[in-house]
Amino acid sequence: MDTNISSFKGETGVDARRRIRNGGSNLAPTSGMAPGFVQGNLAILPKALAADFARFCQLNPKPCPLLASSEPGDWRLPTLGEDLDIRTDIPLYRVWKNGELVEEVRDLKKVWRDDLVSFVLGCSFSFEEALVEAGLEIRHQTQNVNVPMYRTNVQCKPSGPFHGAMVVSMRPFKPADAIRAVQVTTRFPSVHGAPVHLGKPELIGIKDIAKPDYGDSVTVKDDEFPVFWACGVTPQSVVATAKPEFCITHAPGYMLITDLLNSQLAVL
Amino acid sequence: MDTNISSFKGETGVDARRRIRNGGSNLAPTSGMAPGFVQGNLAILPKALAADFARFCQLNPKPCPLLASSEPGDWRLPTLGEDLDIRTDIPLYRVWKNGELVEEVRDLKKVWRDDLVSFVLGCSFSFEEALVEAGLEIRHQTQNVNVPMYRTNVQCKPSGPFHGAMVVSMRPFKPADAIRAVQVTTRFPSVHGAPVHLGKPELIGIKDIAKPDYGDSVTVKDDEFPVFWACGVTPQSVVATAKPEFCITHAPGYMLITDLLNSQLAVL
Repeated sequence: MDTNISSFKGETGVDARRRIRNGGSNLAPTSGMAPGFVQGNLAILPKALAADFARFCQLNPKPCPLLASSEPGDWRLPTLGEDLDIRTDIPLYRVWKNGELVEEVRDLKKVWRDDLVSFVLGCSFSFEEALVEAGLEIRHQTQNVNVPMYRTNVQCKPSGPFHGAMVVSMRPFKPADAIRAVQVTTRFPSVHGAPVHLGKPELIGIKDIAKPDYGDSVTVKDDEFPVFWACGVTPQSVVATAKPEFCITHAPGYMLITDLLNSQLAVL
Repeated sequence: MDTNISSFKGETGVDARRRIRNGGSNLAPTSGMAPGFVQGNLAILPKALAADFARFCQLNPKPCPLLASSEPGDWRLPTLGEDLDIRTDIPLYRVWKNGELVEEVRDLKKVWRDDLVSFVLGCSFSFEEALVEAGLEIRHQTQNVNVPMYRTNVQCKPSGPFHGAMVVSMRPFKPADAIRAVQVTTRFPSVHGAPVHLGKPELIGIKDIAKPDYGDSVTVKDDEFPVFWACGVTPQSVVATAKPEFCITHAPGYMLITDLLNSQLAVL
């Protein structure tokens, strides 16, 4: 997605956040920024909904791997980064009211409330880095498109108003590479972990692999399987369905860059 | 295979070997004996072929996971067991000359030679125990038949006279269980480890999944994949092809029972 990746070589998480915070007109998706550092999905909810959402994440760790949550009203997330301000450190935010997108904003200073709780969830960028380091081809990277994502018929475990189907992302692999991909991503449970399904898309309610519900279609060759991972679009879809009176998310592709290294997330 | 498994509860590896050594008329396959203890495949070759065979195992660790090899002429394998005598501790042996099976014997005392080197290779019993402990169904156990095995078109890396195609065993699983089975068996590299292939049997030269080359056919349901592991029949097939002037193997199903625990083989 980014056309100027080489310029981010050596950039750290805190470097990237400060650059974004002072970014002015250079709005760009965060893919490729601060190479090696963990990027995360953001959901900000009023405290009245925070306990239910925290439990939703705990019940559904594969689609909703919780990396950190804040104190109510506190814009800091000290376990994720030095000098991190969740109101300013993401390039583009979406503000939702009663389930409707009302605006996209470059910072949250005007919409901040003292009852807001921030949730940062792991994202697939981290395990994709590990797959590439293992010598595997990530098809949507090769084809230079967004990862294909699909709504499934697999229901998340509900918590309060939060309920809905799991969304999955798909990467095609030959059988031996699919086995290797299971091994590699198993090491990263806090960023979706091992696949939830492979082959036989109809068994999880996917009717046409060529028609993803989000992102772009990629080629699946005759000697390959589609391999499916739980996807961070799930909590966004679930939050939209719950229609909270107020909610903030990152805009798709514009993630929170943390001070954690992807390699630190490996449990083995 | 064994109809009297409960009688082996609490039996150790050394218990089982001593019972077999003094076994008299009670000839039975070793499946179910000394629960929890590692059982191994046996190949005994003249020293003149031992270096090539050792290298064959090193080059092909998935079908030929070497647990131990002996000094020439020495019938002991101290890393595998206290008071272990490879000439007497397996219920039934096969003696081969120039690639032909010449006899099945209950001990090796009459055929032993001072130049013989014993090789003990890991077997799938160990990882099957781990799969069952993980709550997975092993179809050939449920159907009370031998595991289905297939010759593939995947060539082993050759060493001296030893060459040939890999043989695989097959266990069917639903996709999520196949992913779990990859995780569980990855922990056991010394007993074949992770699967080598899944689904799409035609890609490894298997024409009809219902017609295994060894063992018995098992049901593969519509919502399941065949999952393939490298199989200990590979070295037997390779040794038969090499037609050594003299060779001894265990008879199929009659394994060496060691003092190692299956759980000790887990690398994680």
